[in-house]
Amino acid sequence: MVATPETGPSARGVASTRLPGLPERVEIYEVGPRDGLQNESAVVPVAVKAEFVRRLVAAGLRTVELTSFVPRRWIPQLGDAEELLELLGDDQPPRAPVLVPNEKGLERAVAAGAREVAVFASATESFARRNLNRSVAESLEMFAPVVAQARAAGLPVRGYVSMCFGDPWEGAVPLGQVAEVTLRLAEFGCTEISLGDTIGVGTPGQVAALLDLLGRGGLGVDRLAVHFHDTYGQALANTLTALQHGVTTVDASAGGLGGCPYAGSATGNLATEDLVWQLSGLGIDTGVDLPALARTSLWLAGQLGRPSPSRALAALTPSLQGA
Amino acid sequence: MVATPETGPSARGVASTRLPGLPERVEIYEVGPRDGLQNESAVVPVAVKAEFVRRLVAAGLRTVELTSFVPRRWIPQLGDAEELLELLGDDQPPRAPVLVPNEKGLERAVAAGAREVAVFASATESFARRNLNRSVAESLEMFAPVVAQARAAGLPVRGYVSMCFGDPWEGAVPLGQVAEVTLRLAEFGCTEISLGDTIGVGTPGQVAALLDLLGRGGLGVDRLAVHFHDTYGQALANTLTALQHGVTTVDASAGGLGGCPYAGSATGNLATEDLVWQLSGLGIDTGVDLPALARTSLWLAGQLGRPSPSRALAALTPSLQGA
Repeated sequence: MVATPETGPSARGVASTRLPGLPERVEIYEVGPRDGLQNESAVVPVAVKAEFVRRLVAAGLRTVELTSFVPRRWIPQLGDAEELLELLGDDQPPRAPVLVPNEKGLERAVAAGAREVAVFASATESFARRNLNRSVAESLEMFAPVVAQARAAGLPVRGYVSMCFGDPWEGAVPLGQVAEVTLRLAEFGCTEISLGDTIGVGTPGQVAALLDLLGRGGLGVDRLAVHFHDTYGQALANTLTALQHGVTTVDASAGGLGGCPYAGSATGNLATEDLVWQLSGLGIDTGVDLPALARTSLWLAGQLGRPSPSRALAALTPSLQGA
Repeated sequence: MVATPETGPSARGVASTRLPGLPERVEIYEVGPRDGLQNESAVVPVAVKAEFVRRLVAAGLRTVELTSFVPRRWIPQLGDAEELLELLGDDQPPRAPVLVPNEKGLERAVAAGAREVAVFASATESFARRNLNRSVAESLEMFAPVVAQARAAGLPVRGYVSMCFGDPWEGAVPLGQVAEVTLRLAEFGCTEISLGDTIGVGTPGQVAALLDLLGRGGLGVDRLAVHFHDTYGQALANTLTALQHGVTTVDASAGGLGGCPYAGSATGNLATEDLVWQLSGLGIDTGVDLPALARTSLWLAGQLGRPSPSRALAALTPSLQGA
């Protein structure tokens, strides 16, 4: 009756029912180096960033968003984008997108050798104003030529839609408004669109409603990714629902980097470790070596001088430290 | 296009798809005063415990497990069971179960006026030995007369099955072994059986597999509850799956009381706030007033002198403190 013990407690040998609609494989889109470090108060040295990316790739992550080509004065944490790409050289993962805020950012990214870019749109007027100093319509006008030029240069382009389920200033966000922005980005030529619950308030039925609406709008689910925040603890239940609706690309941040859930301004990215634990338990292949990933996040937490908010990482830590 | 703002950010106005199988209403079985305080290092004064229960009831919780009638030398944190029930008097919730470890505990509970009791079994030999100093078979023999006497006295009896998906010593736990213990408790006459993922390692497919197996074993899902720990961040995804399989009673602990996820020995009860956020978003009635509950958990965290691990509570705190 006694099953095989593994490193640390595990339910890996427990029988599991294949839940309806789940995919065989999920692509984890790792946002730690960009979205994570952008939202940390500390400015991390570029050599540490390069080592972080190398360790993530060694842990099996095939898609890592590396940085953002924003002006240094906007986001000092990511003011070393060119240096990072140069330092990484060939040590980049198969997919290594970089964020570009505008045409100038795209030029810099292309000059630095970026092979994929991403633009960051908002579903709400309030956040568009705060983040981009433009209306939603104006920001989309700004992104249209960025996407077109990148595609013309042969680069895939990811579009982010932020504040999909709620906005700190506006409260609830009508799904029709989210769908409109999403469909515009698709028309522009974005090859993938990531639906972001930036403040983490959404719940599974709302995720299903948005995905259903986009499907009726003619957008194939294979072009969609989901980006959940664990601010209210909902990220993995939302992920499960998205997977059951056909999504196979899920954003996550190593160690939950990029937002401490104990701060009032919590952003709380879904931790990659928590996601991998779930997917692995569901029998879904991610290619990620969880102990190697967890050791990477522990190492980075040491560099940042603060603990990770990841639940799975905290639970795994004693077994890793004993190893 | 702008929705109604509420207290703090919310997605409450967002359209939501009714996911398959979800119930209209969920009974939250609040375990904070017993399972929570039992696992805190501090011994809380009985007057604070009584006030905690009163506030939980005022926040809309209809089922609160009050305490355990264990010998004080076993669990000093709950050494005041009689005093607590006396102090509460009529201020008890509609369902106010108390844990009883054996026949002596049942006698004490009945003498103190308890109207419902619970027994705590283990699915694994290792935990049965550590927790009860008995084999699984011996512990079930011990519980059989407790359940019978309580039922004969007209009391409903809840049976807990712990370590349903993993055990810290044995690793994975065969579901057949879990089902066997569960069905025995049902035969004894337990009116409700709570399936516990005591170390929080389970994932949704495993929850579905166990519920499917118990259904095939002839146990009605209306007699089952689920008790998830958030140690690996899986509790809400597991809850969602359990609800979609017909479970309508969910255990949770106010503020996630009873296990700090940052300790190696994390137990990590699912926080009632995180659960209520999910259920409310799904349009499922719980009767709980979330701000009142969150204020209660904040107040108790102040009494304990440590922050709550609940994600939703942390996110809601600024709006509560501003109020």
